[in-house]
Amino acid sequence: MTTSVPSSRELAHPPRGEIRLEEVLHALSDPVRLSVFRELAEAEGELSCSHFDLPVTKSTTTHHFRVLRESGVIRQAYRGTAKMNGLRRDDLDALFPGLLDHLVAAAVRQAARLGD
Amino acid sequence: MTTSVPSSRELAHPPRGEIRLEEVLHALSDPVRLSVFRELAEAEGELSCSHFDLPVTKSTTTHHFRVLRESGVIRQAYRGTAKMNGLRRDDLDALFPGLLDHLVAAAVRQAARLGD
Repeated sequence: MTTSVPSSRELAHPPRGEIRLEEVLHALSDPVRLSVFRELAEAEGELSCSHFDLPVTKSTTTHHFRVLRESGVIRQAYRGTAKMNGLRRDDLDALFPGLLDHLVAAAVRQAARLGD
Repeated sequence: MTTSVPSSRELAHPPRGEIRLEEVLHALSDPVRLSVFRELAEAEGELSCSHFDLPVTKSTTTHHFRVLRESGVIRQAYRGTAKMNGLRRDDLDALFPGLLDHLVAAAVRQAARLGD
């Protein structure tokens, strides 16, 4: 009999049905996390954590990505030694049609207005 | 010479240009505040604080309305002895076109799904 031992490299993600709007909005209520969200939306694919040049420490960066993952905004997976990140567009679009695109547009518009 | 003394009954609101997306999303990231937001959107007008039957104490209720006001989501004004609340739809639609309606729709959809 084999016993399944969860790997420390497997990252926990909420299933679609457990994603909550409040937690999604909380995840995006921080300027650093909102900028990561915007960049991932514009990339239209996966980006590694090391791609992001954020004005915070490495441990704070890890925290921000964890909040985004645990709220259901992003999916994280290891590819070799890199931790890759992508928006959970299918899940968010299914739960909240049109919301993700409008959140991205609002973030882009604000960044342009404030000169970020 | 007269001196203008701010009345304690005048409530502070951020001007449109100081409303920040992050703070709007933070304001809506709490279940009680999100339910107030949804009810105000459905009312399509002003509602008094006493209209809301919230599962929290009076002081917590006051706190939640203040967070909604200070983030720019709602406008509060005294009418006689009642404190009235309304969404700042014009300001939010101007800053973030389409976002408010999609946030309302997402909140309504989630409430229906979860049976709230």
